[in-house]
Amino acid sequence: MHEVMVAAVQEAGGTVAPIDQASGLIFADPMAAADFPALIAQAVNVEWVQLPYAGVETFVQHLDPNYLWTCGKGVYAPPVAEWIMTALLSAFRDIPTFARATAWPTQTGRNLLGAKLAILGGGGITESFLSLIAPWGCDVTIVRRRAEPVPGATRTVTTGDLDDVLPEVDAVIIALALTPETTGLIDAERLRAMRNDAWLLNVGRGGHVVTDDLVVALRSGEIAGAVLDVTDPEPLPDGHPLWALDNCLITPHVGNTPEMGLPLIADRVRDNVARWIAHEPLIGPIDVELGY
Amino acid sequence: MHEVMVAAVQEAGGTVAPIDQASGLIFADPMAAADFPALIAQAVNVEWVQLPYAGVETFVQHLDPNYLWTCGKGVYAPPVAEWIMTALLSAFRDIPTFARATAWPTQTGRNLLGAKLAILGGGGITESFLSLIAPWGCDVTIVRRRAEPVPGATRTVTTGDLDDVLPEVDAVIIALALTPETTGLIDAERLRAMRNDAWLLNVGRGGHVVTDDLVVALRSGEIAGAVLDVTDPEPLPDGHPLWALDNCLITPHVGNTPEMGLPLIADRVRDNVARWIAHEPLIGPIDVELGY
Repeated sequence: MHEVMVAAVQEAGGTVAPIDQASGLIFADPMAAADFPALIAQAVNVEWVQLPYAGVETFVQHLDPNYLWTCGKGVYAPPVAEWIMTALLSAFRDIPTFARATAWPTQTGRNLLGAKLAILGGGGITESFLSLIAPWGCDVTIVRRRAEPVPGATRTVTTGDLDDVLPEVDAVIIALALTPETTGLIDAERLRAMRNDAWLLNVGRGGHVVTDDLVVALRSGEIAGAVLDVTDPEPLPDGHPLWALDNCLITPHVGNTPEMGLPLIADRVRDNVARWIAHEPLIGPIDVELGY
Repeated sequence: MHEVMVAAVQEAGGTVAPIDQASGLIFADPMAAADFPALIAQAVNVEWVQLPYAGVETFVQHLDPNYLWTCGKGVYAPPVAEWIMTALLSAFRDIPTFARATAWPTQTGRNLLGAKLAILGGGGITESFLSLIAPWGCDVTIVRRRAEPVPGATRTVTTGDLDDVLPEVDAVIIALALTPETTGLIDAERLRAMRNDAWLLNVGRGGHVVTDDLVVALRSGEIAGAVLDVTDPEPLPDGHPLWALDNCLITPHVGNTPEMGLPLIADRVRDNVARWIAHEPLIGPIDVELGY
């Protein structure tokens, strides 16, 4: 990680300097937030801090209006959008069933081509997903807080219309940030509102779905199945009923892995160092007051 | 099937007539080739026959230069191209491993975004695949008999260059017709030429790959894994060594299933009936002399 970041700084025309001489601090290790106070105390000339996070909720206690802050906002969207495509295609084309087979299975599967989809959330992941799915000719409804249309979607509606959308679609994709309003958004009633042949995908946070209600819906066939990259609790404990359900595919929070993310955040660092040297506005600024 | 075809004829402005009065014969059931001689003997006014097949190798003995023949050439390519995307994403993002897990697995997977791919074959499936993968920014080399470039590919080379391409790519995709020249094309030597972290996908015919050589390459880790929609023998018998290999995903010849294909051939019938009525050239003509 250190080498990749040093290369990014140098490729942008920057110099890696001792911490008391640097004008900018590239804070690269997402797992090292606890070390930040000791570091910034030594960084007496630093005016700008670049963080590796897309969302800074775990770092917010360190934000300080005396610095300019930037983060990895948006850079991790393409791998997560690719996970959504992987999950949709795996579900529609019955890959989990075939992966578990030890004899020639029955011919099953349906096309994602031309399917009707709903995405909850209109952020960077959704934008990136819309660019990947464009050639599939799908009918895509975005459900978001504000009615502002998302380019590439068939239509954009607000969260108040969610219950009208659920019975219409082949798959519901959760790509939201977790807030008090979105916690438990998909519960027993909303799962019942979905079609029996529809899939639920969650790449947001486990807390968006009421897990016990999902277990019931999957067992009773109220929905076709679920693909979960996030769970509540997470990690999902050994022996949890979801592990035993053939119509539930669990991936271990790999929408974006550190290996996938490193070259992407390095690109952001390269861009921002070049802008910092040229006194241009930086990409991905954090509003310290709003905390994101 | 009958209802869907009747609807297609009527939507195009045609009339479904008794067989001795019809000017065109829509032969819809791919499994009923044996009934064709008895049918055509009654079809005294028929000038045009529409077949449901993409390739007519199993029907070739019935072709007769006294009729105009059309087939389903090209219509089944999109579902098969979608299978290739499903197989690539499942392989790269480790879906088979996650599908078999009964406890929170290790975070693994890599991106298809920006990968280097080789496709053997430059036909309709390849064209359709190139349109689906366009947003992924992949480097795609087409290996085909003729050097004629395929639009959307990074480069097109001829079969003579195959051995130079194999060591360069993250995945090798077989989308060829089976001919004497392509039988056993991927053997022990060519599997050894592939990278250790590369995947082999086969959506052509089982005979393109020497199965025993593939078992050895998968066991020894010479390649990362294989996704096979076609096998040799097919169906793959119970107890075959491929069933026991974690790095081999087998799907039961579902690139295009009858359910996926029916609306696609119905679209072709609708188009051709409208053209027949308007005395326009039909789509997907068969050259009786060449047999395809």
